[in-house]
Amino acid sequence: MTKQQLFENILKKRSFLCVGLDTDITKLPKHLLKLDNPVVEFNKQIIEATAEYCVSFKPNTAFYESRGVKGWQDLEQTMELIPSDIFTIADAKRGDIGNTSEMYARAFFNKKESGFDFDSVTVAPYMGVDSVSPFLGFEDKWVILLALTSNNGSKDFQFSLLDGDERLYEKVIKQAHTWANADRLMFVVGATRASELEIIRKLAPDNFLLVPGVGAQGGSLQEVAQFGMNATCGLLVNSSRGIIYASNGEDFAEKARSEAKKLRDEMDVLLDKYLG
Amino acid sequence: MTKQQLFENILKKRSFLCVGLDTDITKLPKHLLKLDNPVVEFNKQIIEATAEYCVSFKPNTAFYESRGVKGWQDLEQTMELIPSDIFTIADAKRGDIGNTSEMYARAFFNKKESGFDFDSVTVAPYMGVDSVSPFLGFEDKWVILLALTSNNGSKDFQFSLLDGDERLYEKVIKQAHTWANADRLMFVVGATRASELEIIRKLAPDNFLLVPGVGAQGGSLQEVAQFGMNATCGLLVNSSRGIIYASNGEDFAEKARSEAKKLRDEMDVLLDKYLG
Repeated sequence: MTKQQLFENILKKRSFLCVGLDTDITKLPKHLLKLDNPVVEFNKQIIEATAEYCVSFKPNTAFYESRGVKGWQDLEQTMELIPSDIFTIADAKRGDIGNTSEMYARAFFNKKESGFDFDSVTVAPYMGVDSVSPFLGFEDKWVILLALTSNNGSKDFQFSLLDGDERLYEKVIKQAHTWANADRLMFVVGATRASELEIIRKLAPDNFLLVPGVGAQGGSLQEVAQFGMNATCGLLVNSSRGIIYASNGEDFAEKARSEAKKLRDEMDVLLDKYLG
Repeated sequence: MTKQQLFENILKKRSFLCVGLDTDITKLPKHLLKLDNPVVEFNKQIIEATAEYCVSFKPNTAFYESRGVKGWQDLEQTMELIPSDIFTIADAKRGDIGNTSEMYARAFFNKKESGFDFDSVTVAPYMGVDSVSPFLGFEDKWVILLALTSNNGSKDFQFSLLDGDERLYEKVIKQAHTWANADRLMFVVGATRASELEIIRKLAPDNFLLVPGVGAQGGSLQEVAQFGMNATCGLLVNSSRGIIYASNGEDFAEKARSEAKKLRDEMDVLLDKYLG
């Protein structure tokens, strides 16, 4: 999917919501556990209930890997259920030396070989340029690079001051600009640090930012839009637990739908306010 | 596996060799491709041929993930073939926020749930303490943290100078000492930088170091032993392509065996020289 197509979807749906499919089998509504594929059925109902209000779905691969081969099968079946106009993110946080990152890229982008055809994958920057560039070799596919994450451990290294008063996450953003442009590269930016969004938006004026921290992780949508929105919106704001576990009863999909709609309605107002 | 058990295996086998099972289906000997499970058969023969000369096997998960569900099945079957006294490394370079890293830990350590019971997993440090600590919650399991990698991209961030003339990879090693001790924590250190091994050995006197860069990636085994060995050896030196692709004919396993033996023989001499 191109940046223009993504932006058009945002305008059409009045939403920059990404729904995180972090599906934990131990948290599913009990009535689903009788089924052969409870995770797939759960995801199917979540996708059908929320697709109208979001522009992206983001399965976190860890939740599927934790169940081994069966989990990987569930992820494959889940991806078949997502409408083709919705931007898909493999939240996998991969990254290795060149020939290995090439294998990871094929795992998520080369459907013929792996069964998966995601639009994008999250990538960790620690190993530098050749750990990222193989993902950029696939046409119309995106890298979403970890810059500033929303967890406590982000303080350990991401805020380290380098020569010249530059923080590590700032260097990551600057350096990554030499690898790809905003048509192929997004950044992960934790929304609990809305004040840093201003800095990041200066460093990455044109890139989409994937903001994972609204909802359970505690960010404010209002601040994210105020400091993060650019002329093509430039934001994908994720909510996982707040939507998919809004209820653990038989009404889970209906409740997920109303939580997604609530966020969409807020986003609609914010798009009006900051984008016009 | 405990550190003591690993050290005893090293002394018994006179080897600190790790064989990397980076099995690429496009590089297999042609005669195997007729089989139902060429990757598993290849791995089986490599494991049988080299187990005598190595103390560890390290499948790189990317090579399996690139083939989707089938690759994940092949990895599961491969792990069943590894003798129980051999230290297994999931070279997966994972790392995410706490509740997600917990899922990754279960993916590699919780056999009942995922089918996998690795002794260790490689973890990326960028997201800090809570991305690493969930892996440490599993008894007798190890984290192998990326410190200094052997690829070109390592220059992008790992060598960045922080306040007080400390490089990022040095800070990673220091900080990680506050998370776990040398009984649970190893570091990945690229062997192409033997000069840095001296610095790293000072920062991590007791930890095992996983050195991935000998062979195709170009490090010198002699220098690695000279600067890296400690009182309990403290080294796992990996070779992947140099062993598993030593021949792509019908003699591939035999050639792999003789390459592994050659490295074991060199290691035997080095253990004598530096450990006595």
